[in-house]
Amino acid sequence: MKVGIIGAGRIGKVHIKNISLFVPEMDIKTVADPFMNDATAAYCTQYGITNTTKDAEDILNDSEIEAIIICSSTDTHSKYIIEGAKAGKHVFCEKPVDYDLAKVHEAIDTAKEAGVKLQIGFCRRFDHNHKGVYDAVRAGKVGDVQLVRISSRDPEPPSIDYVKVSGGIFYDMMIHDFDMARYLAGSEVEEVYAKGAVLVDPAIGEAGDVDTAVVTLKFANGAIGVIDNSRQAVYGYDQRVEVFGSKGVAYNQNDTPNTVVISDAECTKSENTYSVMWDRYTQAFVSEMQAFAQAVANDTETPVCGIDGLYPVLMAAAATKSCKEGRPVKISEIEG
Amino acid sequence: MKVGIIGAGRIGKVHIKNISLFVPEMDIKTVADPFMNDATAAYCTQYGITNTTKDAEDILNDSEIEAIIICSSTDTHSKYIIEGAKAGKHVFCEKPVDYDLAKVHEAIDTAKEAGVKLQIGFCRRFDHNHKGVYDAVRAGKVGDVQLVRISSRDPEPPSIDYVKVSGGIFYDMMIHDFDMARYLAGSEVEEVYAKGAVLVDPAIGEAGDVDTAVVTLKFANGAIGVIDNSRQAVYGYDQRVEVFGSKGVAYNQNDTPNTVVISDAECTKSENTYSVMWDRYTQAFVSEMQAFAQAVANDTETPVCGIDGLYPVLMAAAATKSCKEGRPVKISEIEG
Amino acid sequence: MKVGIIGAGRIGKVHIKNISLFVPEMDIKTVADPFMNDATAAYCTQYGITNTTKDAEDILNDSEIEAIIICSSTDTHSKYIIEGAKAGKHVFCEKPVDYDLAKVHEAIDTAKEAGVKLQIGFCRRFDHNHKGVYDAVRAGKVGDVQLVRISSRDPEPPSIDYVKVSGGIFYDMMIHDFDMARYLAGSEVEEVYAKGAVLVDPAIGEAGDVDTAVVTLKFANGAIGVIDNSRQAVYGYDQRVEVFGSKGVAYNQNDTPNTVVISDAECTKSENTYSVMWDRYTQAFVSEMQAFAQAVANDTETPVCGIDGLYPVLMAAAATKSCKEGRPVKISEIEG
Amino acid sequence: MKVGIIGAGRIGKVHIKNISLFVPEMDIKTVADPFMNDATAAYCTQYGITNTTKDAEDILNDSEIEAIIICSSTDTHSKYIIEGAKAGKHVFCEKPVDYDLAKVHEAIDTAKEAGVKLQIGFCRRFDHNHKGVYDAVRAGKVGDVQLVRISSRDPEPPSIDYVKVSGGIFYDMMIHDFDMARYLAGSEVEEVYAKGAVLVDPAIGEAGDVDTAVVTLKFANGAIGVIDNSRQAVYGYDQRVEVFGSKGVAYNQNDTPNTVVISDAECTKSENTYSVMWDRYTQAFVSEMQAFAQAVANDTETPVCGIDGLYPVLMAAAATKSCKEGRPVKISEIEG
Repeated sequence: MKVGIIGAGRIGKVHIKNISLFVPEMDIKTVADPFMNDATAAYCTQYGITNTTKDAEDILNDSEIEAIIICSSTDTHSKYIIEGAKAGKHVFCEKPVDYDLAKVHEAIDTAKEAGVKLQIGFCRRFDHNHKGVYDAVRAGKVGDVQLVRISSRDPEPPSIDYVKVSGGIFYDMMIHDFDMARYLAGSEVEEVYAKGAVLVDPAIGEAGDVDTAVVTLKFANGAIGVIDNSRQAVYGYDQRVEVFGSKGVAYNQNDTPNTVVISDAECTKSENTYSVMWDRYTQAFVSEMQAFAQAVANDTETPVCGIDGLYPVLMAAAATKSCKEGRPVKISEIEG
Repeated sequence: MKVGIIGAGRIGKVHIKNISLFVPEMDIKTVADPFMNDATAAYCTQYGITNTTKDAEDILNDSEIEAIIICSSTDTHSKYIIEGAKAGKHVFCEKPVDYDLAKVHEAIDTAKEAGVKLQIGFCRRFDHNHKGVYDAVRAGKVGDVQLVRISSRDPEPPSIDYVKVSGGIFYDMMIHDFDMARYLAGSEVEEVYAKGAVLVDPAIGEAGDVDTAVVTLKFANGAIGVIDNSRQAVYGYDQRVEVFGSKGVAYNQNDTPNTVVISDAECTKSENTYSVMWDRYTQAFVSEMQAFAQAVANDTETPVCGIDGLYPVLMAAAATKSCKEGRPVKISEIEG
Repeated sequence: MKVGIIGAGRIGKVHIKNISLFVPEMDIKTVADPFMNDATAAYCTQYGITNTTKDAEDILNDSEIEAIIICSSTDTHSKYIIEGAKAGKHVFCEKPVDYDLAKVHEAIDTAKEAGVKLQIGFCRRFDHNHKGVYDAVRAGKVGDVQLVRISSRDPEPPSIDYVKVSGGIFYDMMIHDFDMARYLAGSEVEEVYAKGAVLVDPAIGEAGDVDTAVVTLKFANGAIGVIDNSRQAVYGYDQRVEVFGSKGVAYNQNDTPNTVVISDAECTKSENTYSVMWDRYTQAFVSEMQAFAQAVANDTETPVCGIDGLYPVLMAAAATKSCKEGRPVKISEIEG
Repeated sequence: MKVGIIGAGRIGKVHIKNISLFVPEMDIKTVADPFMNDATAAYCTQYGITNTTKDAEDILNDSEIEAIIICSSTDTHSKYIIEGAKAGKHVFCEKPVDYDLAKVHEAIDTAKEAGVKLQIGFCRRFDHNHKGVYDAVRAGKVGDVQLVRISSRDPEPPSIDYVKVSGGIFYDMMIHDFDMARYLAGSEVEEVYAKGAVLVDPAIGEAGDVDTAVVTLKFANGAIGVIDNSRQAVYGYDQRVEVFGSKGVAYNQNDTPNTVVISDAECTKSENTYSVMWDRYTQAFVSEMQAFAQAVANDTETPVCGIDGLYPVLMAAAATKSCKEGRPVKISEIEG
């Protein structure tokens, strides 16, 4: 299956490498990036890809290309999904689909009408630790889900320039956790209450965002969820989930570079979690692309479909509104 | 120092035993309980206490008794605090002081005017694991506090009869966590948002209460707190706290009866946490009484003073109101 | 049951306290110590014991005393067991019974002939973590025992004066592990190979002892055991056991003062194990005495009987010989 | 750098894959295997290797090939090392070099005279957990090394046919631990005492081998080592090391497929370690080959040189002799 990569920034390069090394079903024919340069082209060559371009249309118009991987800036996601779908290509798109709900709907609908696969890049679902909790929950190990608890903390905040265009912590960072919450609870969220604070860097507040947030979720199945986010965990990339239910609890811990324990006269020491997302989710990025390749190859539903791209955006919108207005906000207020 | 015990139910018996065995500064002269019977008297005799009565006044009127330990039903707490204080006796009182804020204030004020020590039975402050996190936070190990996260789940719900008179989950169960939150954050709570659900037993809902709850707290110092409670954790008495800040994170894990790990062909197994509060907090009950004895003996402030009895009640009132009205409630709304 | 304590040094004081507080079946009538002084008498008074003496005969000749607790120096153990047994008293004796095998046999035989209970102070059998492994093994959780692995390391070496009279590391320190090995394996040791080294303090070598040792054991049931000892673990009192078998493995970890985990920019930190034996085995000392009291009260076999006092001494003799001669030594060479 | 692979069995295939995907410095030109067939050729093609042969000489005589990877049967290792070295090729050879010490010496000497790199396949040195302990030890975190403790247990025994030609547990299985012991201790072994038993399968004993073994090592620097091996750990591939010294202890734990913890009404459960070597040491196999490529590319010493191939064989010989003769055996007895 010939594929085209649209966007060769950081995440694009990761997908290029992973597809080349670990997804034998796929063959990258073309990589497009408006800022394509010698360095990026050399990166592609390293993986046997000689066809690079600045124009995504070269991919969209190439009838040999069966699937596209959209890694471009967020504001172009829905456009490329729609164009790709209309061209009959299967689509893998990085999250979020769009901040504009109408565009999200249009993108999903177009893919559906075109009968192409659409997978959204919520890579954490493919992480061994998060999937381990999910599998335990779905296997009934915790019984009926009553509480979902997620901690998600980045090692350091992005630049203020990025914060300004990020859409805010709920769209940019917690969106992963919104996806994880639905995934773990096995139920849609009906109401969101968000409490935010500026505790890491006043400049983030000046940019109109918060850097610390706690969100309470009410699921349709009655369960309650809670997510905490911080833009800065000095000890590393901290991502843990817990699902509590009528028969027990399942939770995970962070991965560490090794399992070494050292006890000296002072205390007992072990390694911190990874400080870089790419190290923490190395395997998840590979697995999500393998899953997409298999969904296309076998003509099965993708494991993170269009609707999975929509709901986290709804939740982010509700959380943003809740945080500003100081009251719980129903998803139905947003959806309307 | 001669002391009198008012109330010889379960918690009263624990204090009788602990004072007898582990608090050499105190000598229990009299135990009063309106339901005093042969069995309870025999329990007292076992610890060398021969003076038992049905009338708490026998203690309150005994000028030889310097301190009283109030373990009677909640509705009598403030009355005995006031009477004891007026009689010049130091007072240790089980939590909560009262559900009626006016009575709480009166009790605290009376003790203050009388110049007697008043300690409230928030025993968890004395638990080695919770105190370990507190000590780390106060020593600056996590820097400025940004998030406080508390899980508190009981092994099984109380009887429906008890639920009906308990004051509700926020007054009866989460009040310990409200105390813990203030203690760990080192700051007062300004606003509370509570989300409750009936997921364990519909009869709890019929009794007007919830059995599962998540509460978001906003502290005066800007930090955010989150508490989750469930009336039924089938794996045992689950009590964990976490404090996250600018320099790191400190959290604890539950105690287990032993550290044995067994790996067989199926999986790796270890012991669950204790399933009974008295096993989990054995040492904490001893330590709080030793602390009270020392505060009296050395004429120092008690480690859980009157105001520490007041705030959790304010928070419980706000949480109850928030849960009912579906909106965040400021403590100032309650206090007014 | 009236009991007498012979020897009021450190371990004697621990037994005095534990019996007074936690063993209601026993009532300490008399404490004897050749160095009895005001401080020791005051310690006894604190627990309600007014009868103190320098002469152990005051206990041995007191017909009211039913059981004796021997906490005197090792060279007097067998003598007091024999005299006590002949006087019809039940005997709890600290380990080891004696370095002289003939005396050990005589002591055991005398107790047997007198029909009195004899319990040896191998307190670790009563430790929750070690007992947890034992219970798992006896319950068949690991199947047939194939390997027994024990690490036992003291926080710091004893004084050189003590080393000189200690009988050597195998009699003084590893004797506990010899007992534990038999207890866990459920089989007697047939052969011992000991390798020792002087790595902690040359003065220990000059005193004719080693401070670091690894011993391989061959059990009658075919299993192999291995014990390592060091006189100095700077991180605390390190005691762990592991039993490996046909169906799995069971092992334990050290206890720590609390379960707090702190992650900061440097690494993840937790508490070291206890640095003091009395803190690590607080509960085990209580439990062994409760078990002795119950064995006497119910006329059942003591959980650590005379033969359990004999075998570790045989193993220590074999290990000492093996370490000196540089070859494996059979227990039958020692027993003969 | 063009390389040739000699031997395309299980380990050969792993190296083919790893070099192709993760070692950009190397380009596999030819794969030789006396049993080369369509399936193996297809495996090679998958990684872009079209040149396959049944004759290793095609590689040894190919002047374009700079380095060879020897993955053939043990009896051919030394022969290919010698031929490869004489042909001026750098050599990576799977362990063990040979069971015949004269051949080991000849192989090492020939490589040295030829001035080619020689690296032996002790992959565990490259494992993140074992390397983590090594790094801590070398960084002085445990001070002077006093004890080295290694547990190494396979999930299930090999076939009896294999056992018969394996050279025995010490050459076949514990040889990895002998390497690890030297690596961790930073000192050579002077004396070995081995105790073996047949506890897993009597057929192993009938084949003249043992399936369970404990070996005590005496290092030149005074430290003591202890290794335990079992051919069958039903809970998985169990590999842990511990180094104890004057300033502390460093140890590691097994990797698990995920970090999920489940607590239910019964107990607390987590994943067992991997049950397959290739899963446990996935990353180590990659890292050792990257290290070899870099040693060749940068003309630096290989991280596991010829002498590192020799010593474990000496130790295996001494252990085999010790186990048979029931006495400690000095390495000097073997070397002579």
